[in-house]
Amino acid sequence: MGDLMSAVRPAAQRAPASGIIAAVNHGRDKEGLIPLWAGEGDLPTPRFIADAATRALRDGETFYTYPRGLPALREALAGYYEALYGRPFDPDTFYMTGSGMQAIQLCVALTVGEDEEILVPTPTWPNVSGAGAVIGARPVPVPMDEADGRWVLTVEALERAVTPATRAIFLNSPANPTGWTADLATLERVLEFARRHGLWIIADEIYARFVWTGAPRAPSFLDIAAPDERILYVGTFSKNWAMTGWRMGWIHAPVALRQTLENLIQYSTSGVAQFLQRAGLAAVTEGDWFVRATIERARVGREVVSEALAGHSRVTYAPPDGAFYAFFKVAGLASSREAAFRLIDEALVGTAPGTAFGANGEGYVRVCFLRSRESLAEAMDRIVRFLNALD
Amino acid sequence: MGDLMSAVRPAAQRAPASGIIAAVNHGRDKEGLIPLWAGEGDLPTPRFIADAATRALRDGETFYTYPRGLPALREALAGYYEALYGRPFDPDTFYMTGSGMQAIQLCVALTVGEDEEILVPTPTWPNVSGAGAVIGARPVPVPMDEADGRWVLTVEALERAVTPATRAIFLNSPANPTGWTADLATLERVLEFARRHGLWIIADEIYARFVWTGAPRAPSFLDIAAPDERILYVGTFSKNWAMTGWRMGWIHAPVALRQTLENLIQYSTSGVAQFLQRAGLAAVTEGDWFVRATIERARVGREVVSEALAGHSRVTYAPPDGAFYAFFKVAGLASSREAAFRLIDEALVGTAPGTAFGANGEGYVRVCFLRSRESLAEAMDRIVRFLNALD
Repeated sequence: MGDLMSAVRPAAQRAPASGIIAAVNHGRDKEGLIPLWAGEGDLPTPRFIADAATRALRDGETFYTYPRGLPALREALAGYYEALYGRPFDPDTFYMTGSGMQAIQLCVALTVGEDEEILVPTPTWPNVSGAGAVIGARPVPVPMDEADGRWVLTVEALERAVTPATRAIFLNSPANPTGWTADLATLERVLEFARRHGLWIIADEIYARFVWTGAPRAPSFLDIAAPDERILYVGTFSKNWAMTGWRMGWIHAPVALRQTLENLIQYSTSGVAQFLQRAGLAAVTEGDWFVRATIERARVGREVVSEALAGHSRVTYAPPDGAFYAFFKVAGLASSREAAFRLIDEALVGTAPGTAFGANGEGYVRVCFLRSRESLAEAMDRIVRFLNALD
Repeated sequence: MGDLMSAVRPAAQRAPASGIIAAVNHGRDKEGLIPLWAGEGDLPTPRFIADAATRALRDGETFYTYPRGLPALREALAGYYEALYGRPFDPDTFYMTGSGMQAIQLCVALTVGEDEEILVPTPTWPNVSGAGAVIGARPVPVPMDEADGRWVLTVEALERAVTPATRAIFLNSPANPTGWTADLATLERVLEFARRHGLWIIADEIYARFVWTGAPRAPSFLDIAAPDERILYVGTFSKNWAMTGWRMGWIHAPVALRQTLENLIQYSTSGVAQFLQRAGLAAVTEGDWFVRATIERARVGREVVSEALAGHSRVTYAPPDGAFYAFFKVAGLASSREAAFRLIDEALVGTAPGTAFGANGEGYVRVCFLRSRESLAEAMDRIVRFLNALD
């Protein structure tokens, strides 16, 4: 057995186990547990989206299809972006992928090689570093500044981390788990920094419409960058349309990369099932009412969580500017892991340990608040009772 | 634009465009064309399989799920293997993947690193070399011997190709496109060779039940290897159950690799949609009648093709021992590409150019014969008329 592992490619061995999955595995079978550990809501995919897949299955759309994705869906995505960003988009700049995760993985594979570096502001969703590690690259954590539970990424921190081996920055705004949402001035400074060092930006703006600052959407690199800039945008159906389990996402990238990206898709999953793409098409073209309802659900969830946590004597927490997570620190527990595991065992609430998002997440846990008011209120009651009972 | 491409990671640039896709793109919209270019049949997925996905969608199975795959499906796969190979299998040795292609990609990522080598007998399906190139590894073509249209891989050819940088062999038997099907003695020699050099074997036996030698299935490394051997088996739902468009496959690998493989899955697509896995479960547990019917369809197809090609004065062809492709050489045309493109334009039959499978495929084309007798007979008539009309 040891012999087998020693024969495994070192980079594949280095990929760390997900700390979120570790918590899920610990609590998966607990009766009555309220799961707030994953980045997904409590509603299944709406019927009109699922039915589009069912119809396509009935119509026999079960053969190989376009590696880059159905033309109709890529056109629909271009239309969706046009509505959101106020200018036309070329359908040939969209590439369907087998999840937002795969979009990230392909963008990393496109830009960062063995022993090269990608800057990853932390705390952040761990999978981008995992994808970098698997390819033999070095994910370089760039610690965000924290004060009273509010996290901020500064360009100064990026400047301190850049080296001649740096090839890319992963920039997630609105951010998971911190809720940090870059303003336009910050994005401009990041873009200037990237240009100056010749870096790619992998822009993860998947929570663009989940913003709590009063704006209709978060500021985006799409507002300031040229079309042939070194920026790759990753997208997903998961969050807007309650499609986490579908494994369907996309990349928006300059046309010049078309053949290269098509090759990367061809040699990984060779595209996305056509009948699933029909569901994606229904989501993008008929689903805006559902996205708006989902955003409203998250807005209420944020209030419920903030009411429970803000001002609690054991808790460091600031209401997030964007995304749908509360990331808070608990005083009096030895570690994030202890907090998450005891919350599972003693409060029957599933949270994700902060260390799953980077070393500087120690002491924190993350909860997802995209959930019904009732269920979330019950979960927060349980958490508060647990906190109150700590010595 | 040029500037953008120069910033792309060199390994990602090196991944070659698929020569099969090139032919498909040339002929996709030709009215009346009979497409024999892809490795798929002409029947959609059977209703009982599609309905299982539909039911799971209705039941709301649209959330995140187990990265390694549904326990019920992994148990069913273990049972399927037990029936086929005559001994028990551990469900924890099975990992669901987002296509057989992704199974291959993950196995390559597990075993071969930058500037390391993987031996790839050719002609073969090009995507394994593509997956190697993307990761920065060197796919080393190992030419098979050919005589009168019959291709054979010898261990001597592998011996000549091995270097200190070699980490793995990709072994596809029954083989696409050549139909070569290793006997047990050959597999034993390959295994001995791999052990002696400390190499991994990536065993692609997905056509195991499509054999035309009278045996119920092809000889397998599973017949001769120990459970903790350095062998990774890739699998797919595509061929047996007419599910090419579903992008669903699996890996069978030693338990010792469990966490490493789970990580590789987590950081690529994070698993397969649960409602799709329900369809896989229906296929494996209730679908053997369909597999048998598919094999029979291919058996008849092989006869139709052989009747048309064997003995034709312009054609070098030997009926294959396994899989469902005819790979034949046409005298009097300048290249595979000319043959494939002219067959599209002048005969309205889609074939894959032999060079898509390796340099030594030059002069050949591949047709898939998993198709109704009528449609296939018409396609072969068209091909023969085209050949007869050549000067």
